[in-house]
Amino acid sequence: MKTVGIIGGMGTLATIDLFNKIAIETNAKSDSEHLHILIDNNAQIPDRTKFILGDGENPTYELEKSAMNLEKIGADFLAIPCNTAHYFYNNIDRAVGIEVVNMIEETAKNIKKDNINKVGLLATSGTIKSGIYDRIFKDYDIEIVKLSDNEQSIIMDFIYSIKEGRSDFERDKIVKIFDNFNDLDVSKVILGCTELPVGIDMLDINGDFIDPTNILARVCVEKAKYG
Amino acid sequence: MKTVGIIGGMGTLATIDLFNKIAIETNAKSDSEHLHILIDNNAQIPDRTKFILGDGENPTYELEKSAMNLEKIGADFLAIPCNTAHYFYNNIDRAVGIEVVNMIEETAKNIKKDNINKVGLLATSGTIKSGIYDRIFKDYDIEIVKLSDNEQSIIMDFIYSIKEGRSDFERDKIVKIFDNFNDLDVSKVILGCTELPVGIDMLDINGDFIDPTNILARVCVEKAKYG
Repeated sequence: MKTVGIIGGMGTLATIDLFNKIAIETNAKSDSEHLHILIDNNAQIPDRTKFILGDGENPTYELEKSAMNLEKIGADFLAIPCNTAHYFYNNIDRAVGIEVVNMIEETAKNIKKDNINKVGLLATSGTIKSGIYDRIFKDYDIEIVKLSDNEQSIIMDFIYSIKEGRSDFERDKIVKIFDNFNDLDVSKVILGCTELPVGIDMLDINGDFIDPTNILARVCVEKAKYG
Repeated sequence: MKTVGIIGGMGTLATIDLFNKIAIETNAKSDSEHLHILIDNNAQIPDRTKFILGDGENPTYELEKSAMNLEKIGADFLAIPCNTAHYFYNNIDRAVGIEVVNMIEETAKNIKKDNINKVGLLATSGTIKSGIYDRIFKDYDIEIVKLSDNEQSIIMDFIYSIKEGRSDFERDKIVKIFDNFNDLDVSKVILGCTELPVGIDMLDINGDFIDPTNILARVCVEKAKYG
């Protein structure tokens, strides 16, 4: 079995969410059937969105350091439970000699496998501005429907409220965004920030969402068990 | 802020539980207010109870290896979310130059602070046989009330069912054990295996239990923030 390395802390709740989803997907029947997982919950990684929007410290150094530390103590491949951090994917990938799973590409593959050609995207303004979803999804011929500026600002407030550990965000505002996607005939929406599946659970909103964290968890289990 | 290192995987759900409890206790308002936490979820650590009962591989080497790896990549102190593994505490402590928090001693301190002198103990047969709780609690003048052989075997079945990821253990059997403690005038019971708080949640059993995982989480947050 291969050892998973997780570059975490972006945020901490999203990292716990991935850890938990890996444990569930592993379907272990004893301690030793679980995966060997190394986690660097590096809360010191500067805010990705702020940097991409031109107003913050560069997170590349901390991301590379975490990747190298995980490789040093035995990780066979790496996972990054933060969509926005994938803007720095090439730097992280170059910093280590082991594979770095690209969560956004795995999400595209998954959607393509299900023969879906049009999806809604909820993500940080950093992820949207960086164009990382656009670039990868173009290769897979999947159309991305984004939010209006007003909706985008609601989603950013929601994401930061989750990072604050709050669970009191106005549920109706989020439900309305999903309803608007439905009106546009977009039936599948990507929870393209790893705080979002955490927040959607907090608000007890149900739906047939695409959850990149869960896709990443399944890929980690597959790779650890079967290479 | 100091970096926490967690020797995990004993089991994986208990490790997630500690990670989650640390996040809650941290009370962070942003990504960067969370703690820097390094986790080695080392699922290859041999079963502690089996070894103590004379029927299994020695887990000392894997425990020491995890401790040293966490120190190597920057942990300032270590926590071990497994009561039974505290039987090997001295070996782990000698393997590294950083502090190793003793969860059982912290639990004793906590109980003493609340002026409680008699507690019930639910734990693995390995923990019971090893006498680790007895030795430490004697120093704090706290009397430990243990289970009958029959009850102990029910608790072991319950613990291993949690490790199997099952949530279908007969709730009444566990409730009856708590009731029996009550009949003996033991109002406070230690969930002295880190799977137990996970399992008690799964079965939705409520009570005023002493949860060493939660005590350990609070100590980790204190040490990380204030040294």
